[in-house]
Amino acid sequence: MKALELSVKPTVLKLGGSVITHKDKAFTANLKAIGRLAEEIADAKTPQLIVVHGGGSFGHPLAKEYAIKEGFRGGAAQLLGFTKTHQAMITLNNMVLEALIQHNIPAMTVAPSSFIVSKSGRITAMTNEPLKRLLKMGSVPLLYGDVVLDSDKGFTVLSGDQLVASTAVQFGAGRIIIGIDEDGLFTGDPKKPGRHSIIRKCTLRELRRLWRKLESTSVFDVTGGMRGKMVELAAAIETGIPTLIVNASKSQRIYRALRGEKVIGTFIEKD
Amino acid sequence: MKALELSVKPTVLKLGGSVITHKDKAFTANLKAIGRLAEEIADAKTPQLIVVHGGGSFGHPLAKEYAIKEGFRGGAAQLLGFTKTHQAMITLNNMVLEALIQHNIPAMTVAPSSFIVSKSGRITAMTNEPLKRLLKMGSVPLLYGDVVLDSDKGFTVLSGDQLVASTAVQFGAGRIIIGIDEDGLFTGDPKKPGRHSIIRKCTLRELRRLWRKLESTSVFDVTGGMRGKMVELAAAIETGIPTLIVNASKSQRIYRALRGEKVIGTFIEKD
Repeated sequence: MKALELSVKPTVLKLGGSVITHKDKAFTANLKAIGRLAEEIADAKTPQLIVVHGGGSFGHPLAKEYAIKEGFRGGAAQLLGFTKTHQAMITLNNMVLEALIQHNIPAMTVAPSSFIVSKSGRITAMTNEPLKRLLKMGSVPLLYGDVVLDSDKGFTVLSGDQLVASTAVQFGAGRIIIGIDEDGLFTGDPKKPGRHSIIRKCTLRELRRLWRKLESTSVFDVTGGMRGKMVELAAAIETGIPTLIVNASKSQRIYRALRGEKVIGTFIEKD
Repeated sequence: MKALELSVKPTVLKLGGSVITHKDKAFTANLKAIGRLAEEIADAKTPQLIVVHGGGSFGHPLAKEYAIKEGFRGGAAQLLGFTKTHQAMITLNNMVLEALIQHNIPAMTVAPSSFIVSKSGRITAMTNEPLKRLLKMGSVPLLYGDVVLDSDKGFTVLSGDQLVASTAVQFGAGRIIIGIDEDGLFTGDPKKPGRHSIIRKCTLRELRRLWRKLESTSVFDVTGGMRGKMVELAAAIETGIPTLIVNASKSQRIYRALRGEKVIGTFIEKD
């Protein structure tokens, strides 16, 4: 639709679940972090911004308890679990939305489960007319990792990271900013002792080479779940969308990233 | 899609905003009524049920304050008002969802603004793959009157009643049940003194004839806003979907209506 073409390429910002919730306490939001991030987003005044947040301690415990990712086995109990997991996510989402509104950001929630049906856990097509129009209007669409209906499995979990990559590609994003609770990607697990240094800049190819090396030294799965995240994001980076990973738990990192200022983090581009 | 054909025709149930909220107190839910209705819905065990609720004192004050129905005039303030109105609705919706979950009803919210774009306030097409799949799976899709993007006006308000009619037609509903805070339709305004009797059963034609009569005696606009409601519902009734209007503020009326038992109310059919 020509009338909806955007003059500025959108920025897709991810707020990690480990940043906006207390990971170790089920259903506990980190309201201080949410408020600070809302303020940074308001200050940055980024045009054409799309925000996606993760589930952290809201989505994960229930999704695990009811084995949502594995699909619908039939039966009322699991169907209720599907709903409960969604409800946990909308509860967290409402807190994020509230903070954004408090900072006068015209964010608008677009619920993934209300328009996406995946196929074996993958988004195959993601057209969303409301989201397109919100962007055009100057609103800030707000999405989140969610449970979704699935054409093969009945239902499943859709990660915020897959949503980030899919949204970025769909809307021709100029860049992706991923806010996590680490300073960026490291040459080893930053949460474990050892001499790990931050990767300031790399190509997708270099990153893959590094991970193969890490796999062979068996530290692979301890890289803080970052590999699964990168597999999702690679789909967008490969289409030419540069991605910056920064520490959203630290003050001003998201602000600086959004402003395009120099910031500690990992910058990944196609080549 | 053949695989998604339903063996039982769905029932679309509307829970009026004046029933589930305290109309005179902004942003105040009637949690007692919501809990009772959830219990009645659980007891009725209606297969293929779709529930739509209104906005009452949550949606209306903000929608009015920001003139959402009139469309987007441009500017950050009104855009924020659009979001605030939506947020009020998701707050109310979350309370309804919570009550349904408490009564073990596998309801699942489908957010209208996340998939509907209207044209001058009218839904022109309403395909929703998640909703279809939820029904097939035995879940109870839960929708609500909402703000929506609009291809002519930027945005507008979508009434729960238009949503009821549109959903009923789209999913080939077998019946519509409308829960309001009156016993049904009357020959005059039931909230005003006078000799008004309840209309137990009528055709759409008879109803229109009655309203023309009421208009000529100038009591038209005092019929409790029921005329606007009926204009919306007529679209579904005309396609052959019978509609029953009952008092959802009174105990067991919704239960009896859902069970197909004899109940005080107004039954309207095409002819």
